[in-house]
Amino acid sequence: MNEVPMLGGFASGTPGLAAIDIFERLESNVRFYCRQYPALFSRAAGAELWTSDGRRFLDFLSGAGALNYGHNNPVLKQALLEYLSFNGPVHSLDMHTEAKAHFLLSFERNILAPRHLDYKVQFVGPTGANAVEAAFKLARKVTQRRSIAAFTNGYHGMSLGALAATASLSKRGGAHVSLNDVVRLPYEGFLAERMGSFEVVESLLTQAGCGLDPVAAIVLETVQGEGGLNACTRDWIRSVADLARNIGALLIIDDIQAGCGRTGSFFSFDDLDVVPDIVCLSKSISGYGLPMSIILLKRDLDLWSPGEHNGTFRGNNLAFVTGAAALDCYWSDNIFSSSVGEKSSFLRNRLCEISENWPGLFSQVKGRGLLTGLECREPEFAAMLVSKCYDLGLIIETCGPRDTVMKFMPALTAEFELLDEGLGIFERAVEACKVNAS
Amino acid sequence: MNEVPMLGGFASGTPGLAAIDIFERLESNVRFYCRQYPALFSRAAGAELWTSDGRRFLDFLSGAGALNYGHNNPVLKQALLEYLSFNGPVHSLDMHTEAKAHFLLSFERNILAPRHLDYKVQFVGPTGANAVEAAFKLARKVTQRRSIAAFTNGYHGMSLGALAATASLSKRGGAHVSLNDVVRLPYEGFLAERMGSFEVVESLLTQAGCGLDPVAAIVLETVQGEGGLNACTRDWIRSVADLARNIGALLIIDDIQAGCGRTGSFFSFDDLDVVPDIVCLSKSISGYGLPMSIILLKRDLDLWSPGEHNGTFRGNNLAFVTGAAALDCYWSDNIFSSSVGEKSSFLRNRLCEISENWPGLFSQVKGRGLLTGLECREPEFAAMLVSKCYDLGLIIETCGPRDTVMKFMPALTAEFELLDEGLGIFERAVEACKVNAS
Amino acid sequence: MNEVPMLGGFASGTPGLAAIDIFERLESNVRFYCRQYPALFSRAAGAELWTSDGRRFLDFLSGAGALNYGHNNPVLKQALLEYLSFNGPVHSLDMHTEAKAHFLLSFERNILAPRHLDYKVQFVGPTGANAVEAAFKLARKVTQRRSIAAFTNGYHGMSLGALAATASLSKRGGAHVSLNDVVRLPYEGFLAERMGSFEVVESLLTQAGCGLDPVAAIVLETVQGEGGLNACTRDWIRSVADLARNIGALLIIDDIQAGCGRTGSFFSFDDLDVVPDIVCLSKSISGYGLPMSIILLKRDLDLWSPGEHNGTFRGNNLAFVTGAAALDCYWSDNIFSSSVGEKSSFLRNRLCEISENWPGLFSQVKGRGLLTGLECREPEFAAMLVSKCYDLGLIIETCGPRDTVMKFMPALTAEFELLDEGLGIFERAVEACKVNAS
Amino acid sequence: MNEVPMLGGFASGTPGLAAIDIFERLESNVRFYCRQYPALFSRAAGAELWTSDGRRFLDFLSGAGALNYGHNNPVLKQALLEYLSFNGPVHSLDMHTEAKAHFLLSFERNILAPRHLDYKVQFVGPTGANAVEAAFKLARKVTQRRSIAAFTNGYHGMSLGALAATASLSKRGGAHVSLNDVVRLPYEGFLAERMGSFEVVESLLTQAGCGLDPVAAIVLETVQGEGGLNACTRDWIRSVADLARNIGALLIIDDIQAGCGRTGSFFSFDDLDVVPDIVCLSKSISGYGLPMSIILLKRDLDLWSPGEHNGTFRGNNLAFVTGAAALDCYWSDNIFSSSVGEKSSFLRNRLCEISENWPGLFSQVKGRGLLTGLECREPEFAAMLVSKCYDLGLIIETCGPRDTVMKFMPALTAEFELLDEGLGIFERAVEACKVNAS
Repeated sequence: MNEVPMLGGFASGTPGLAAIDIFERLESNVRFYCRQYPALFSRAAGAELWTSDGRRFLDFLSGAGALNYGHNNPVLKQALLEYLSFNGPVHSLDMHTEAKAHFLLSFERNILAPRHLDYKVQFVGPTGANAVEAAFKLARKVTQRRSIAAFTNGYHGMSLGALAATASLSKRGGAHVSLNDVVRLPYEGFLAERMGSFEVVESLLTQAGCGLDPVAAIVLETVQGEGGLNACTRDWIRSVADLARNIGALLIIDDIQAGCGRTGSFFSFDDLDVVPDIVCLSKSISGYGLPMSIILLKRDLDLWSPGEHNGTFRGNNLAFVTGAAALDCYWSDNIFSSSVGEKSSFLRNRLCEISENWPGLFSQVKGRGLLTGLECREPEFAAMLVSKCYDLGLIIETCGPRDTVMKFMPALTAEFELLDEGLGIFERAVEACKVNAS
Repeated sequence: MNEVPMLGGFASGTPGLAAIDIFERLESNVRFYCRQYPALFSRAAGAELWTSDGRRFLDFLSGAGALNYGHNNPVLKQALLEYLSFNGPVHSLDMHTEAKAHFLLSFERNILAPRHLDYKVQFVGPTGANAVEAAFKLARKVTQRRSIAAFTNGYHGMSLGALAATASLSKRGGAHVSLNDVVRLPYEGFLAERMGSFEVVESLLTQAGCGLDPVAAIVLETVQGEGGLNACTRDWIRSVADLARNIGALLIIDDIQAGCGRTGSFFSFDDLDVVPDIVCLSKSISGYGLPMSIILLKRDLDLWSPGEHNGTFRGNNLAFVTGAAALDCYWSDNIFSSSVGEKSSFLRNRLCEISENWPGLFSQVKGRGLLTGLECREPEFAAMLVSKCYDLGLIIETCGPRDTVMKFMPALTAEFELLDEGLGIFERAVEACKVNAS
Repeated sequence: MNEVPMLGGFASGTPGLAAIDIFERLESNVRFYCRQYPALFSRAAGAELWTSDGRRFLDFLSGAGALNYGHNNPVLKQALLEYLSFNGPVHSLDMHTEAKAHFLLSFERNILAPRHLDYKVQFVGPTGANAVEAAFKLARKVTQRRSIAAFTNGYHGMSLGALAATASLSKRGGAHVSLNDVVRLPYEGFLAERMGSFEVVESLLTQAGCGLDPVAAIVLETVQGEGGLNACTRDWIRSVADLARNIGALLIIDDIQAGCGRTGSFFSFDDLDVVPDIVCLSKSISGYGLPMSIILLKRDLDLWSPGEHNGTFRGNNLAFVTGAAALDCYWSDNIFSSSVGEKSSFLRNRLCEISENWPGLFSQVKGRGLLTGLECREPEFAAMLVSKCYDLGLIIETCGPRDTVMKFMPALTAEFELLDEGLGIFERAVEACKVNAS
Repeated sequence: MNEVPMLGGFASGTPGLAAIDIFERLESNVRFYCRQYPALFSRAAGAELWTSDGRRFLDFLSGAGALNYGHNNPVLKQALLEYLSFNGPVHSLDMHTEAKAHFLLSFERNILAPRHLDYKVQFVGPTGANAVEAAFKLARKVTQRRSIAAFTNGYHGMSLGALAATASLSKRGGAHVSLNDVVRLPYEGFLAERMGSFEVVESLLTQAGCGLDPVAAIVLETVQGEGGLNACTRDWIRSVADLARNIGALLIIDDIQAGCGRTGSFFSFDDLDVVPDIVCLSKSISGYGLPMSIILLKRDLDLWSPGEHNGTFRGNNLAFVTGAAALDCYWSDNIFSSSVGEKSSFLRNRLCEISENWPGLFSQVKGRGLLTGLECREPEFAAMLVSKCYDLGLIIETCGPRDTVMKFMPALTAEFELLDEGLGIFERAVEACKVNAS
């Protein structure tokens, strides 16, 4: 895996720097990640990336959660290449294809049936935001209510309907218009005393005089991926689910980042004893980083008229193929899930150790599964760490409203050695940055 | 190309009907095209599709414009397979990759430079709606105005920001909330006397007392793909462009369906003597049906902050690879463009003949390039035609607010023989439906 | 009527200028009319005003239409003084009072019954804007639709719900938020060719692909008082009324400025052969300049729940008393209406003469009844005229989106001599300003 | 005061019931108070009302706070009659009149100067809602922010801009459109533990990740008059005021119901150690029940353009006259304020006694000053009390989101004997209803 092939000879003789001029000249200022990791990437496999000039990086970013099974996962790749070679339809709108049938059957067999979930699948536009937009439309149609309740630090996407539910003020500010029909509630732990989190939510939504119009749905992430890896407890989410039912609102779980195995189980809520009315999935649902999103909706909520929500790219057959292969390969039994659990424990323990070994720099370990983070006391220190990790060969990002939470999100398939190597790099970065921080 | 391979043996021994039960059981009612073309598709090449039981269809739908170069175009496929085999990164957020650099350079070399266009490229979420959402955000930021002017019969997508600009009442109704910050203007030809179209637009936007807040942008399609293949004239769009400039509004051309060669030139506005401030591209920009969208923005409008608009799937490298291959293969000279022009003339002539041969059934030939349609007098007749065409082996859809316009949108690469074969099927369908219509 | 009493001795020995300092020091910059007519007014009767230092002005402004029966009309004053002296309740919320019963009976007897109108009366907050807000709420409730259609140059008030329907961009801009759920249509004559006005409205509201959500109501003024004294024709408004009925929308006539006799008949639409579903009245409904507003609603539209729209000042009994007195005094037969008709003819003829006598300065005579205006070609000339008239002892204002229309709105009770005197002043002002204008 | 004059002879020989048929036939169903107090009122003085057939009622409703100085207060009446008799201008838009000058000077002399408040006065449309609408417009203009923070159980009016800040769900539901650009926060005591009220507000508005866009203003009532007589503490409001300043938001105190002496001091916040940026006054500012509203704004916030917010009835000179008379008569020294304080103590003590004397029926005494209430445990019991009080000759209403709080709001000028009489009636009603309640 060390040899780095060139793409059509493009970069041969072209120093990386010159290549990066291309982006400066031709790509909008809006680009973001490339400013933190300015290399020109050329090849990728598993949890590793190589640049065009042969540098190797460990990847603890995993496509912001879209690469749970690693880059170019060979099992998925095999299915993809076969499908391509026999000219399976690649793009099919919402027509029936064998690839879609396979995906649906695989999803039923591996995911729905074992959990006794009676969901129907809606193929939405291939972005998570589109899944959220579709979920909100449906919730409003079903309940004939306009308002959606969303949480502090929630992240649900960038199109106006989804952005209204997103908490990040800088993202919201980009709209330059009012973002309506969403109310904001404090997520568990947002307010000072953790214990009161649910009571405040309940009072704000239901107490006489609350002044909030009845909500069509409550939308939440079980682990707030962009919002700082806040993970809710089973008690809290069960209370929220009961509340939703009592007030006639749907419970929508946005499992776009935390789902597809990221927390150890396929759904992040598998062990939380709640059954959402609607589930949004995206990112790793295709398994191979291919754009695809779906929502799961309880059968009796399927009040859609044909074509009421549509979009050109709802039939990404390559994603169906790799998605089905991923489900068959990793979710037909508990082996994979168990291994993710073990890696999660390993990661969490190591982060706790690191936190203790460098006292004063970190405030807490947060998150669940392989969506676990280490919160720095200062955003500047976190930024330094990202930069130093990059220099040392590790791609890792921060999250949270103050960008203080180092987010460890390696491929679920990454081996222990690789996790260990990445954590070693991180420790070296901490040691190196420590001086500047003090 | 006649042998139809089975996908992993799924359908062997499975009659098509049983397969379709899968969708009924597991897929949301929202599915639409599969109700008109209920076959189970298994393989596709060029402008042809095959079902799992070996039936062949001609495809005049072309993925609603996402398959301008045909299904599984062999040149693009070759580039894709190569990229996959040497493990190029598939998903890269907005990091730099060789594939992206190649796409940008190819786009610059083949599209921007020959036209002396000084655009920057923004990679947005891989749906057309997301391109529109990004364009609106930017226009509002640049102008510090909230309102967007959109046109009757315009179609710009399904997420709330884009849906506000979409004219279809059934799509709008799906929102179940108010769609704000967009005003509606009559497109050329919408009002009874074609000549006055621009004057009304000008009066409504600029005359003292008009009562419309200053607009950040005017968004339009040069050919309204969903809205009934209304094609604006050069005079009209130039007037609109002048108007936009005079009132300090941006001109956004949504070239998602009409662009990427569909009208004969790469941009649908190449011959219209206007330079939009922002261009939205999607559908066929990847060339292979892979989800990808971009906006082009004039260099001095690039006021984005890093990450102000983001999304997980902005780095679809497979789409970059096939997109670059398509640009290099088809747009480095005028040969392809000329051939599309010839096919367009052929199509238009045949549709005019058909209209004359069956007097009383059709009202006009509409559209431009290989986005040309034949308007039926009655929606019921149009629906019968779609159904009969399907029975005879031709996939074709209707568009327009009353679903009366038969939309002929074959692959741009389709050979004359195939166009002729499809038109022959259509004629047989007309003959067959004629009796019922009268 | 020449002696000017002092209010509690305040101004005795206080030069007017010093008094005006009071306002500069203590009153917000938002004050408007006092900048054009900076005198300190002390007494008023009929169509005359006197300042504290004894200067006399003719009043062609009439409280922007709130003083149709003149200042301190003696008949109304008598009723008011009597009511006050026997301690009738002044403020009664929406409780039953004798004064309210009298008003209702008088309104029924003098206005509704002779016209065979089966309206119920809703007492709303005492501003015209509140009448409009209530009308919109009711229309939305009845139709279960959100959008309201309003017209270019329409004026309906300043609170957010009403402001959304108001066309003035400077007023709208004061909201600093989006004004939603209203669409704008061209009023008769707004577009270049007068004849097409209705067809455009019809197309924009009803044609397939129009892209405007179904409207709950169409709201309009028969003469646009602030918008430049545009008066619609009987043909046009009948077409609009038919259209509203055909599309299931209510017709709301905002008769706040044009009603209560201003155009000669009690309702401005009495001779237009339409029966609005809802009528908004304010300004002169109390007859004495006292704040009061009502809406009239067809009996079967009265779907209000008790208290669904409320407000503290809905029970202004002084206004009920003077309002009933005005109805009894002026509207129990046709004498008053006829006299207003004669004065209207006199006014219009004189304005036509003036327009002809000073060619090149004016473009047209506009409006209806004693809501007639003379449009100047240039706003600067109109502003000069206002100022010069004030200097010569005439209070008159401009209207229209460019403030070019001199608005002649004397008390309906003003005698011919007084009209003549005012027009004489106006002519002298024209003569004086003419030089500067050229 | 026992003789009840008839209004123009209307009711002579007309039984009350027949009169009430008039309202049923001619007035909209929206009428509310008259359903609880169905008498036909004919005369009023101080805290007493008489019906046309001679029945006497004590008035503990006081025009929902618009009659703080009692019905037909003789001092104010005298000023009013004088002004009317010498033909002072009644309606003057926003022109300068002696009456307005007197009001401004009186307000400066009696209210602003003694408190060292440097406010300017804006005369807005004569409804409280209009004052709130104007305050919001100004706050949004000054801060260039869109969102307003309002509180649970807040009541700010019925027009759409004000209604967005009003908490009552039934009132909000009347809009039938989304009410935007307002966020809701828990008022002090709304959440279970009183002590945490401010911390939750602070967290929701300022903590990183809160997801609420920066607010232009925080609007609140110091005693929530409609919301159940919740009175905030000095500590809480000071914290809120500090918070507002720290986040660049204006503090708007809606003193429409609690102001003008209702709590004992002229402003309800006189003893709370806060200086609001904007104060909304209405209801009793005219003193005589005449429609008038103003906002007070800090001098440096007066960024209004002339006419940016306007309205026909901003120049209610009768209200200026009675308003100035009320200020001169009651607020030039502390005598009146002290007497209100004594009555408030008397009232509160009696309510506490009542609560103790009938254990199990009431939960708490709430409110401040002569805006004090007694909360019933059950809404049905409260409704019975209202009805029984009416039967026994006392007009009193309930408030609060569940209509459980008996609201004692007599005229501030009511004598002790009258308060005592009213409380006696109330006790008899409690005794009478007690049996049914149990």
